Amino acid sequence: MTGQPAGEQVPGPPPDLRSAVVVGTGLIGTSIALALRERGVAVGLADHDQAAARLAADIGGGTVLPDALSTTARRPADLAVLAVPPAAAAPALAAAQATGLARWYTDVASVKGAVLDQARRLGCDLGPFVPGHPLSGRERSGPAAARADLFLGRPWVICPGPETAPGAVTAVTALVECCRAQVVRLSAGEHDRYVALVSHAPHVVAAAMAARLAAAAEPALLLSGQGLRDVTRIAAGDGRMWAQILAANATPVAEILAAVAADLTAAAEALNEAEAGLAEPALKALTGLLDEGSAGVARIPGKRGKPRRDDVVVQVVIPDVPGELARLFRAAGEAGVNIEDIGIEHSPGLPVGVAELTVRPEAAARLTQALAASGWPVRR
Amino acid sequence: MTGQPAGEQVPGPPPDLRSAVVVGTGLIGTSIALALRERGVAVGLADHDQAAARLAADIGGGTVLPDALSTTARRPADLAVLAVPPAAAAPALAAAQATGLARWYTDVASVKGAVLDQARRLGCDLGPFVPGHPLSGRERSGPAAARADLFLGRPWVICPGPETAPGAVTAVTALVECCRAQVVRLSAGEHDRYVALVSHAPHVVAAAMAARLAAAAEPALLLSGQGLRDVTRIAAGDGRMWAQILAANATPVAEILAAVAADLTAAAEALNEAEAGLAEPALKALTGLLDEGSAGVARIPGKRGKPRRDDVVVQVVIPDVPGELARLFRAAGEAGVNIEDIGIEHSPGLPVGVAELTVRPEAAARLTQALAASGWPVRR
Repeated sequence: MTGQPAGEQVPGPPPDLRSAVVVGTGLIGTSIALALRERGVAVGLADHDQAAARLAADIGGGTVLPDALSTTARRPADLAVLAVPPAAAAPALAAAQATGLARWYTDVASVKGAVLDQARRLGCDLGPFVPGHPLSGRERSGPAAARADLFLGRPWVICPGPETAPGAVTAVTALVECCRAQVVRLSAGEHDRYVALVSHAPHVVAAAMAARLAAAAEPALLLSGQGLRDVTRIAAGDGRMWAQILAANATPVAEILAAVAADLTAAAEALNEAEAGLAEPALKALTGLLDEGSAGVARIPGKRGKPRRDDVVVQVVIPDVPGELARLFRAAGEAGVNIEDIGIEHSPGLPVGVAELTVRPEAAARLTQALAASGWPVRR
Repeated sequence: MTGQPAGEQVPGPPPDLRSAVVVGTGLIGTSIALALRERGVAVGLADHDQAAARLAADIGGGTVLPDALSTTARRPADLAVLAVPPAAAAPALAAAQATGLARWYTDVASVKGAVLDQARRLGCDLGPFVPGHPLSGRERSGPAAARADLFLGRPWVICPGPETAPGAVTAVTALVECCRAQVVRLSAGEHDRYVALVSHAPHVVAAAMAARLAAAAEPALLLSGQGLRDVTRIAAGDGRMWAQILAANATPVAEILAAVAADLTAAAEALNEAEAGLAEPALKALTGLLDEGSAGVARIPGKRGKPRRDDVVVQVVIPDVPGELARLFRAAGEAGVNIEDIGIEHSPGLPVGVAELTVRPEAAARLTQALAASGWPVRR
């Protein structure tokens, strides 16, 4: 089901994007296909794994093209979306252009310079190609996890160059709008430096910290809390796939990792000096790094696109049984309070949890009173 | 309010812990005081900031001792809890013992070896002292954030040594039970190595990554997602306070930071080699580090104390208006489904969110059907 209320008009497909082929029906490709289908775009699906293509078609992503990349007789689609891994993007572009698969082309690879370089080496026509990168912010994979709203409100980088045809940019912009994402125009070099900073390097840093846990004593892990879970969470990915992504963006990632390593080496030296009795200058250097980190964190936009530092957290102790959360949210809803965010902290081995409800400051008193009136143990 | 149903008996104070003095009424001290008061323990409060002590008393933490540390005429309490920063713990113990403040003593510092060393140098009597460290897992501070259940189900390390009196261990164990936490007995050295791994070093690693963001180009931050937020979140702390904690556990933290720095340097070198065309061996080294990180993450216990890798996430698109979450959880509750965890992902600038409900595998189909039957756009 789509969540579309009965009777509301679905807008037709954009004039520049009436038909598309999605090559590669993993999480990204299938989610794009679902979004295009919701807008009434005719979608052909291709994947070297026929089962993945059929699954994408089964959940409503379009029609499987049995041998799309070798068929030259069919009419070209308006746009081909090459939703394949970074190393496969340029070869997929070359193969698609060789068969005249579409009028315009884009890809979804998380690196852009390496794809463009390889496409040039393979003799691709770069005029009809707009390098693209939708940032879904999810870490699942496969067509079964796909959803039409995967990119809703998220940034979608496009990197047209001086050689790019205006018609290609128009078609890809229509694609981004069908996915209800937000176009961010960058050069390929800017894109690669930026994702090195916000995605690729953090992955390696998380892995290097998490690697220390692999052989740690069991009781040490008993002491771990939410902080350690958060710092290391993204390191739980497919090592081989990530190594390929990193290698395709090697120079910008290496620069950041070297800078982080230098700071950590300096911090270790400062701590050894503090241990040796040279406490004050060492503490000052360490405080400087920690303060710079704190300043960096403050610059990250919040879930709503900008930090809302005045949000208030209301804590409620809840029994860990069915129906209690419903009772809690019914009380909040009846008070007319909008919950901005929710967290539940479970206690190992105990039958209660603490729900943390984040609300705007003006709603906090109303929520606290309403919950207290319904008998909830509540604390700001 | 305490959440205590009317008519239910509150157990009296433990026989070995009828009275306590809490020295230092920040988040930790005040939360301990509240938990002790809930069990009927008589609690005296002391803080060099009189306003903080009064606030702790006002919210139900006990009675302010106006000049607790210089009064020798009063009868000693059963236990003094020194809830002061690590550098102040041993001096507070010396001062408390000089006035005969209590029969037994404990502290809450997040480092233990340094506190013990300093206490020995200050000539403290270590017989009645049990070094302690409750791991609350929260990052807020101050008495206003305190709650009696701050330690509920969390580990509370105690480090009795060969010199510790059995009566001291009994009293501190009663304290931990009043706070409904779980006693973890470790040597001071074990404790310090373990918290260096799961708390202190991750803080510096997060800060060193976040420091790269402090001077980053604005559009780069636009591309940031939940991964970057999670990796860096704990770095948003008080740099000066953290530098002191780290300096008090310098050697174990420095060892881990040096190891992380070495791995990151090696990763940067591998990436530079990959860029230079030596792709295969470099990729192999990098994959090795990433796989080790992934193995490390898998060892971290989940919110319920052990990983539940088979938990299923059900996603529901919800309008961002009051009452919708209540409607959602009512449907889940009516289906008899227990929600293990909740997340809400907001889309910047858009009036919808995606609720992610984590449930046990056996409940997933029931939840999906119940929500779909109530008209929710739901996806596994």
